[in-house]
Amino acid sequence: MSSLEYLIEERIVRYKEEYKFEPFLKEVSREMVRKSIEHTLLKPTATVEDIVALCEQAKEYKFCGVCVNPSFAETSLQLLKGSGVKVISVVGFPLGTNTQLSKAQEASELIRIGVDEIDMVIHVGMLKSHEWSYVYEDIRGVVEACKGKPVKVIIETCYLTNEEKIAACVISELAGASFVKTSTGFGPAGATAEDVNLMKWSAPKLSVKASGGIRSYNQAIDLIKAGATRIGTSSGTKIISEEV
Amino acid sequence: MSSLEYLIEERIVRYKEEYKFEPFLKEVSREMVRKSIEHTLLKPTATVEDIVALCEQAKEYKFCGVCVNPSFAETSLQLLKGSGVKVISVVGFPLGTNTQLSKAQEASELIRIGVDEIDMVIHVGMLKSHEWSYVYEDIRGVVEACKGKPVKVIIETCYLTNEEKIAACVISELAGASFVKTSTGFGPAGATAEDVNLMKWSAPKLSVKASGGIRSYNQAIDLIKAGATRIGTSSGTKIISEEV
Repeated sequence: MSSLEYLIEERIVRYKEEYKFEPFLKEVSREMVRKSIEHTLLKPTATVEDIVALCEQAKEYKFCGVCVNPSFAETSLQLLKGSGVKVISVVGFPLGTNTQLSKAQEASELIRIGVDEIDMVIHVGMLKSHEWSYVYEDIRGVVEACKGKPVKVIIETCYLTNEEKIAACVISELAGASFVKTSTGFGPAGATAEDVNLMKWSAPKLSVKASGGIRSYNQAIDLIKAGATRIGTSSGTKIISEEV
Repeated sequence: MSSLEYLIEERIVRYKEEYKFEPFLKEVSREMVRKSIEHTLLKPTATVEDIVALCEQAKEYKFCGVCVNPSFAETSLQLLKGSGVKVISVVGFPLGTNTQLSKAQEASELIRIGVDEIDMVIHVGMLKSHEWSYVYEDIRGVVEACKGKPVKVIIETCYLTNEEKIAACVISELAGASFVKTSTGFGPAGATAEDVNLMKWSAPKLSVKASGGIRSYNQAIDLIKAGATRIGTSSGTKIISEEV
């Protein structure tokens, strides 16, 4: 048994014996929500004009960052220069089924352009095939290409059993990721507080980004209480303006 | 006005004046359907085992080819060596919003591996922004990386007006593509006979691949009559076994 397999098995045994859902925070302020938001636009139909509007809103609302597709990273960086708003882009998005080389090259170009953080998609099929070392190398290649900039691994929880979610988190932590992230927003379901909590428990050294289907202030609050420090959403302006 | 813009405008004027839906074929044999099928598996959850089954079926049914994600191209090539079944893979899939460099690099690696044909996704947002030369360069980069191997441009019809479909076809033809293809299968709608016919009319030098939501023999027949010479579907074995 490889050490990777051993660590996954060990974590799954512990999960069965001792894990229970337990929020990390009791109180969450509106300011914490605002600072956690990655203002996101990843639709294939997004125009240059839409990206300009996204960046302007992110500045106005002082969100943590914008999350855009690679072809809009350069424009977003120009628009947000000096604003303190991060530019986050995606790799192998949204299927995660590109080659390892292709994912590393895509990450490398984005880092060269100046992107602050990379959200990469895990290879779900290889995870389901229990090809642990493939999944590790896939993430590791992107982490190395990012030269110290934070990498988030999107594990696409909607397709995974709890055991697979744990395996994905353990491998992401070992491969040097900074975050695990719940969803691409293109799968059949998005973030849940249960998944966020399990992910934080499974990879305690990593931060958790919740994303996919987050459209209300109360949803954001519950996800942050459960352990998320970032919220990926296209509804940021609505969420933060909501009366509660 | 650039020559690209002129050619698009001219084709749109002609469309308004003279285009009408007109099937290219009256009769289509079962053999024609069989030979047109690209046996397709692009789901992010596909395992190694699923890819093996796909390739075995493609050999058994003597389909035109298999269409797989890049990370499964090498395995598919090994499994289908000497079988006469083509291996087709995808670039910038399914959003088309990667950088131009990233798309060209992904294509280049796939051609180096030995893939027979490349299906790339157009940049829908740039098309909608009327950034014609961006769209042209994006396709041209992939065509050049493919060194003479056929490139299909997925225009993702479900997001486009008829005028945008025409523009996409005109640009694809000028950029040196071999096919235009209707859909990724990940958008809100798939192939229609109307779109296939309009695409064939808009880019007469190119072949048309219909894909997305094709699940019956009669649907395949209608698409081939309308002008398609390839059918991308995950229901190939069902379609070809259907009693009509």
